[in-house]
Amino acid sequence: MSSQGKYKWIGTRPDRPDGADKVTGRARFGADFSLPGQLVGKVLRSPHPHALIKSIDTSKARALPGVKAVITAEDFPEQANLIVPAGEMQVNLRDVTRNIMAREKALFEGHPVAAVAATSEAVAKQALALIKVDYKVLPHVIDVADAMKPNAPVLHDHLLTEGANPPATKPSNIAKRIEFAKGDAKAAFAKAEVVIEKSYTTQPVHQGYIEPHAALASATEDGQVQLWTTTQGHFQVRGFCSRLLDIETSQIRVTATEIGGGFGGKTVVYLEPLAIKLSQKAGKPVKMTMTREEVFRATGPAPGADMTVKLGATRDGRIVAASIRIDMQAGAFPGSPVGPAAMCSFACYDLDNVHIEGFDVVSNRPKVAAYRAPGAPISAWAVESTMDLLAQKLDMDPVDLRLKNAAKKGTKTAYGVTFGEIGMVQTLEAVKNSAHYRSAVKPGHGRGVSAGFWFNVGADSSAAAHVGEDGSVTVISGNPDIGGSRASLALMAAEELGIDYDKVRCIIADTASIGFNFVTGGSRVTFATGLAVVNSVRDMIREMKVRAAKIWGVDPDAVTWENGMAKPAGSNVGEFEPLTIAQIAAQAGKTGGPINGHAQLNVTGAGPGFGVHLVDLKVDSDTGQVTITRYTAAQDVGTAIHPSYVEGQLQGGAVQGIGWALNEEYIYSAGGKLQNPGFLDYRMPVASDLPMIETILVEVPNPTHPYGVRGVGEVPIVPPTAAIGNAIARATGVRMTDLPMSPPRLSEALDTAPARMAAE
Amino acid sequence: MSSQGKYKWIGTRPDRPDGADKVTGRARFGADFSLPGQLVGKVLRSPHPHALIKSIDTSKARALPGVKAVITAEDFPEQANLIVPAGEMQVNLRDVTRNIMAREKALFEGHPVAAVAATSEAVAKQALALIKVDYKVLPHVIDVADAMKPNAPVLHDHLLTEGANPPATKPSNIAKRIEFAKGDAKAAFAKAEVVIEKSYTTQPVHQGYIEPHAALASATEDGQVQLWTTTQGHFQVRGFCSRLLDIETSQIRVTATEIGGGFGGKTVVYLEPLAIKLSQKAGKPVKMTMTREEVFRATGPAPGADMTVKLGATRDGRIVAASIRIDMQAGAFPGSPVGPAAMCSFACYDLDNVHIEGFDVVSNRPKVAAYRAPGAPISAWAVESTMDLLAQKLDMDPVDLRLKNAAKKGTKTAYGVTFGEIGMVQTLEAVKNSAHYRSAVKPGHGRGVSAGFWFNVGADSSAAAHVGEDGSVTVISGNPDIGGSRASLALMAAEELGIDYDKVRCIIADTASIGFNFVTGGSRVTFATGLAVVNSVRDMIREMKVRAAKIWGVDPDAVTWENGMAKPAGSNVGEFEPLTIAQIAAQAGKTGGPINGHAQLNVTGAGPGFGVHLVDLKVDSDTGQVTITRYTAAQDVGTAIHPSYVEGQLQGGAVQGIGWALNEEYIYSAGGKLQNPGFLDYRMPVASDLPMIETILVEVPNPTHPYGVRGVGEVPIVPPTAAIGNAIARATGVRMTDLPMSPPRLSEALDTAPARMAAE
Repeated sequence: MSSQGKYKWIGTRPDRPDGADKVTGRARFGADFSLPGQLVGKVLRSPHPHALIKSIDTSKARALPGVKAVITAEDFPEQANLIVPAGEMQVNLRDVTRNIMAREKALFEGHPVAAVAATSEAVAKQALALIKVDYKVLPHVIDVADAMKPNAPVLHDHLLTEGANPPATKPSNIAKRIEFAKGDAKAAFAKAEVVIEKSYTTQPVHQGYIEPHAALASATEDGQVQLWTTTQGHFQVRGFCSRLLDIETSQIRVTATEIGGGFGGKTVVYLEPLAIKLSQKAGKPVKMTMTREEVFRATGPAPGADMTVKLGATRDGRIVAASIRIDMQAGAFPGSPVGPAAMCSFACYDLDNVHIEGFDVVSNRPKVAAYRAPGAPISAWAVESTMDLLAQKLDMDPVDLRLKNAAKKGTKTAYGVTFGEIGMVQTLEAVKNSAHYRSAVKPGHGRGVSAGFWFNVGADSSAAAHVGEDGSVTVISGNPDIGGSRASLALMAAEELGIDYDKVRCIIADTASIGFNFVTGGSRVTFATGLAVVNSVRDMIREMKVRAAKIWGVDPDAVTWENGMAKPAGSNVGEFEPLTIAQIAAQAGKTGGPINGHAQLNVTGAGPGFGVHLVDLKVDSDTGQVTITRYTAAQDVGTAIHPSYVEGQLQGGAVQGIGWALNEEYIYSAGGKLQNPGFLDYRMPVASDLPMIETILVEVPNPTHPYGVRGVGEVPIVPPTAAIGNAIARATGVRMTDLPMSPPRLSEALDTAPARMAAE
Repeated sequence: MSSQGKYKWIGTRPDRPDGADKVTGRARFGADFSLPGQLVGKVLRSPHPHALIKSIDTSKARALPGVKAVITAEDFPEQANLIVPAGEMQVNLRDVTRNIMAREKALFEGHPVAAVAATSEAVAKQALALIKVDYKVLPHVIDVADAMKPNAPVLHDHLLTEGANPPATKPSNIAKRIEFAKGDAKAAFAKAEVVIEKSYTTQPVHQGYIEPHAALASATEDGQVQLWTTTQGHFQVRGFCSRLLDIETSQIRVTATEIGGGFGGKTVVYLEPLAIKLSQKAGKPVKMTMTREEVFRATGPAPGADMTVKLGATRDGRIVAASIRIDMQAGAFPGSPVGPAAMCSFACYDLDNVHIEGFDVVSNRPKVAAYRAPGAPISAWAVESTMDLLAQKLDMDPVDLRLKNAAKKGTKTAYGVTFGEIGMVQTLEAVKNSAHYRSAVKPGHGRGVSAGFWFNVGADSSAAAHVGEDGSVTVISGNPDIGGSRASLALMAAEELGIDYDKVRCIIADTASIGFNFVTGGSRVTFATGLAVVNSVRDMIREMKVRAAKIWGVDPDAVTWENGMAKPAGSNVGEFEPLTIAQIAAQAGKTGGPINGHAQLNVTGAGPGFGVHLVDLKVDSDTGQVTITRYTAAQDVGTAIHPSYVEGQLQGGAVQGIGWALNEEYIYSAGGKLQNPGFLDYRMPVASDLPMIETILVEVPNPTHPYGVRGVGEVPIVPPTAAIGNAIARATGVRMTDLPMSPPRLSEALDTAPARMAAE
């Protein structure tokens, strides 16, 4: 199933093109850009989780020497309460403009209330202290269950539950109800031989990108804007800022800096519109950077959720009915990933009767943002834990149970998609046949298995390819390189051209220099932008054949392309020495001018991905500390264009899932204030916590892509939590239902387990 | 002849798109770019105009704390003694690599001998002082006439005169002989009723750009290079650096900064390859800037020349024979603009018998560089002064003499081109009919007339156009904007699209982000890149029609484009509301993805330009100071896309010509050292020296361009020197033949005139 041997460059592992810059410290991240005369911008944030803003007095701040601009929500135009596209994302701008700057109300602790630009950070901080905000503190609500109660404090007076049945008539914190159904789950449960039902919770976790948000804006008096920002999508930033500030997209030029991690959290805007507005008012460039504390208090984590899963099966392990209810935190504004959580929940399995219900619930927390396969790890925690319970109940091998019910080509999901070529079965088999799975579980250890799914996306991409006068090739993309896209795009270009990878350089252009590109997210870049690159290169090859034909005085159809050279298409064309790209390029001027290729398209046909993770661990029964001793991540990765990067994605996703499983959570005080906004108290796994993460790449090419690419970046964060929970259950006999399974929680569960089991 | 009324946007005068940035100081020029950890690079220059470099000892400099790299010619690969393309310019790289860093010999005072990169400018200067160069000083030669003498010190042992007849057998300083001939000048002179012959000289003049050269290079360990530099052609810089440093073009990404003037002088490289090499060796970014003194001593001015012109005519003013001999300085390496000087010399006139001979002569001066219509002002000084002598001799109105002999459609030049639609006659008539020409010459004043020609060029351009999701448009070019190309390109795009100019923004992309573009020079950008932009926009409109057809469910051919909207092409297509760009853009994703247009071509058909300048002046007979009291520049400008910029070109060219005429020159000591390397001693005209320069735009569209564009930037520097010399002759009765006509020279001429005239 490997691509090796089939291709010359695809499947090889050249050094990463950004490697030298990153190991020498030369790479420029968001905070590394500066302009002459720039000001420092800082944000004043609400100390209250929920409060009316009665008035803001900025006069003293404005009067402070060195303060060049002060802004509040008044500086941003009001927006209609409608879902509209911004940079091709569908968003409610009424909410977005309130998320970047509180308007009537502060809705979470850390909510921006005002911002200043000053000649130094010290002056900016002084100015923030001089801004007087008259708040009326309101009762707040933090957790989903509380927020859904009829008597809960309501965040948004206008919010009527979308999709409620019967229709909602009075405002609540429930923004939306969604439902997917296939077959008749109720009837099937009634007939099932075995039924298991269990409830679960997860806590919000932050993406934990190492690089805090940073932006540098320069706005001119005639309305032009330049912006440098750390983002997963500079076109997305342009779209948001265009909408929020009422500036045409052509007037905003955004350069994506190198990015120190995003994982979905850098697909929205926080500082960018503030920096632009401050720059407009100050008439100077404005640089803004967040502290780690600001990142935690005021940027979007992945949500927490409350869930109940029910599985019905035959005694021989065929699942006949499945249901899940997901109550998901959205944070201060509607828009949790309850949709994808619902879609992904049972997508690993070929089921006839499924019922899925989900609720999108606001509360006084920062608005959630995307985090790697948004929503999917949450529902997978519940579903895959329940799968393990079922396997235990049926005394079945957990891989075999999944194999018996695995989705395959032709499986129709509850959300309506029918799968094409997928690799769920092959991935399960790869795990089953792995040395890890065939090894004995060490005494005192537990072994857990879990599966995970992500649908992957395509969407809009533009690309170009240019031949230099020496025949070397530049590939131009418009997606920030997070997971190695410069390498994967250049590998595909080299393969198409039939030239050495070293002759191809891939760069990321700013928003003005290349056509529109949707965000780096949804595991789309190597797939969708890759297709745009392949098409660009084919356009360029077509043109090079035209040029060769001109040089030879033959018809373009009489020229073929082979091994990086134009050759006569047949012996009847005539006797011509093949022409290399360099030879064609040297005559480009004479044969018609520069040789460039282009492509732009809305790419469909993204191949979904399936992962199966396997973990061995032991639990310290005194402290509740879990030590992972072996971990294997297997995945249906399509064609692994650059296998090292693909392995890195599997490893990184697994590690983030391990953190989600064992330690990460947001801890709030009774007053609604975040207690652990820093990496000391918000514990993420570090290298010393982990074994080497083993990987198994299962290459099932995606037939809709010329090189079989499917997205690989998101699937690997889906299975870990349940794999670990299942391993803990196998190791200790205690089934954990609430994340994280941190030492205090796990030790408490171990201590109280005998009593609980006796009671059950 | 005006374009007004014909177009909606072309011919209008919107605010310049770089205006706000430039008046607020926000625009970033070459020296305004910095990178974290950058070093300062400085150049050690030869104090001798001609010297063997026996050895260079850099050991002490290398040992100095803070010095991170030292380079000499040894760090650059040797190059073949061949004319080859570099960034599509044809150059001898053997000479170029020696020009940027002396190898066997220092060939002019200021010639780079070594360079250092250090942690501060102070340390860098200390390091330069520690480099020990063992020179053997050689006899030097500065002036052309001296350099052509048989016993002159020879600069290049290998240099045999190209085109010599008989072929050269021993090395000399004459690099090349060129000849153009039409008809039989010798025979025609013999039959002429009037013959005038006169010799002239010009002195080198510097382009005088306000911004000295500056470059910032960052090279990584894996061979990638980023470069920011003030240049007229970042692709040209890429090409030179690629060749000089043996780096593939795809590995060098060059950003052109805003440019504080170039005028041809920023089409070559000086600091860029040194900065890259220093960065490679130091492993850090290196920034280099020249002082004004370095600019004067070591960058290319326009050459000086010695010339003899002979005109033969009938008594009624028909010129029957013309000849010129031009001995032109090349500086230290071959390559003066003697070719274009020769081509342009008689191109204003429709002549049957012409003989032109030119010599390219090296001497111990900095290698000359292009300066606005390279060579043409030099030969025009001689030819147009002689035309005035002829008019005086025939007692003919100088405009009428030129009208009688004016080039027109069908005229075949001595260099072999047959003119198409040109405006020499119309321009002369416009001057003749001008208020200025019809006004009486004030007592004590003189009035001079002169004509000038430049052929203009096309060459390779790439462009693109992108529609933002809100329907605003970005136009992407790859030519640094010197004379207003951002505005002129956007105006043409707005005209094509039928939308407001404000909806179009034109940006200049780096060398990696857009396909190849030849330099901003030869008055090519609005013409050639303009055509690429027009074609890009047409490609985009074609695509928008396809999208509209999709939306309507009709054939793309059934859609027409009008006033910025897609409309049904006829009543039989169906009833559809027109779709604006914004409406089409809003559905771009659904109808196929991003909407971008592209074009790349080698543009031919540049329309030549003709200028006629008219000047009134008075001369202070005591001091020799000339005061210009009225000045009018008329020109065949094709279509004036943005008339204010076109007028600015005419004004700027006239002013530079005034400086050339009256003050500017390089003054050398007997030891071959430049005595006036600064703006205090090298006198350029400033606003207070000048009247308002009046302009007359004669619009004769160039039929090979969709909007009739012909280049306008170079012609206006061609006529001024002779116009002023002719006015001085009319005012004083003294005919000046040597430039500049500075106060000391002119007062001396006035003092000695009676004696000279008596002697003649």
